[in-house]
Amino acid sequence: MCQLLGMNCNVPTDIVFSFTGFATRGGRTDEHKDGWGIAFFEGAGVRHFVDYESAVASPIAELIKRCPIKSKNVIAHIRKATQGRIALENCHPFVRELWGRYWVFAHNGDLKDFAPELNGAFRPVGTTDSEQAFCYLLQELRRRFGDTHPPLEALTAALRELAADIARHGTFNMMLSDGTALFAHCSTHLHYIVRQYPFTTAKLSDEDLSVDFAQVTTPRDRVAIIVTAPLTNNETWTQFGSGELKVFVEGEPVSL
Amino acid sequence: MCQLLGMNCNVPTDIVFSFTGFATRGGRTDEHKDGWGIAFFEGAGVRHFVDYESAVASPIAELIKRCPIKSKNVIAHIRKATQGRIALENCHPFVRELWGRYWVFAHNGDLKDFAPELNGAFRPVGTTDSEQAFCYLLQELRRRFGDTHPPLEALTAALRELAADIARHGTFNMMLSDGTALFAHCSTHLHYIVRQYPFTTAKLSDEDLSVDFAQVTTPRDRVAIIVTAPLTNNETWTQFGSGELKVFVEGEPVSL
Repeated sequence: MCQLLGMNCNVPTDIVFSFTGFATRGGRTDEHKDGWGIAFFEGAGVRHFVDYESAVASPIAELIKRCPIKSKNVIAHIRKATQGRIALENCHPFVRELWGRYWVFAHNGDLKDFAPELNGAFRPVGTTDSEQAFCYLLQELRRRFGDTHPPLEALTAALRELAADIARHGTFNMMLSDGTALFAHCSTHLHYIVRQYPFTTAKLSDEDLSVDFAQVTTPRDRVAIIVTAPLTNNETWTQFGSGELKVFVEGEPVSL
Repeated sequence: MCQLLGMNCNVPTDIVFSFTGFATRGGRTDEHKDGWGIAFFEGAGVRHFVDYESAVASPIAELIKRCPIKSKNVIAHIRKATQGRIALENCHPFVRELWGRYWVFAHNGDLKDFAPELNGAFRPVGTTDSEQAFCYLLQELRRRFGDTHPPLEALTAALRELAADIARHGTFNMMLSDGTALFAHCSTHLHYIVRQYPFTTAKLSDEDLSVDFAQVTTPRDRVAIIVTAPLTNNETWTQFGSGELKVFVEGEPVSL
């Protein structure tokens, strides 16, 4: 099993605090040492970093902690290999283009007997069940909506159906973003928090580190953090229900 | 105009020496300061770094010089914006998946009145003529060969035709790789060198730096470096002809 971290905000925000706690689980406070990755949207562009070293040992993870990258949508992943050998092409998140936008995807879980019929429009490069699921999702979105990016409501309804369909094969905790919205589906473990005015001090569970967000934000900032297991021990995180898909836009979950 | 750097080898090799000279042109010894990028194949996977800061100022470029990444196929680019604003989505190289492999592409030049008909399978995310050309190339390869990666000879013949077709619109110096072969097409400026046993000492033109390759190689290593303008001043570089497309495999140009 792996762990997931996502961030969706209304202003470009750096993820250094959350990533620091999360990356610690990649080989130090937890066993997820078979690679890691992170993707940051910046406008329509994506910065994509993947590595098969553990996140605690990786010089690129170190750089990300030292040089804050500001983004409205981020997805990160630390890997404990279940399907697919330890290799760069099997590290999440995966990136593909659909409708002239990049899509970023990461998955935690294990899908059994999952062999969707892929028509060739999106094909896995690596050997994970996760990349298969991603290719299948994009293929089916394109099949349903043709060449046009649909409105968020229709897109969400389609993803809800498709995620439920895939989740019949096993655990399908996943995050997906097109740079505007962040979709998160929970089979077993996923939690979120929305940080907004008035901001308080948050303390990481995995490292001896606190941040007073009131010092580094403006009153209109809003940041949603979505993660496998809560990152802080002095804030209230909301647990996803099993089978639930939530959509985050501009730093908060929206009802669709 | 921009500058291109490519490397194709028979064993995974680091590009630190060549990249150091090349990156210096990104804002110090030359004017290409509107972003840069580099993509390294590692097996089927790709490490992709892009930035809209100049290569001489970028902390990621600094990391690449400090932490050698070994690869058999690398494509790098420094950008002087002609079409498309300075933004992450307009930085080369671009990456897409076709036939279950990643393809990496970078372009130097300026295409006029180039508006190929794109059927939606590959769509530009940014606003450059270069990304349009890349999407068109992949679309046409898929149209010709369907769902199957063709043999190198057929692929090369198709790319030769398509590159000539695109080059009618302007300057089309480009590099393309699927992780096994590196294709380079020249309209105006492109040079290459093959380094192999017996290795000698090379001296950069843009920085006061030399490397004795005999110290860091084995007798069977072979490395082709392809670049807009020669990087060293004590080696003999071969200039591409105008309209020429060369294919590099296992560290040398192959006749196809």
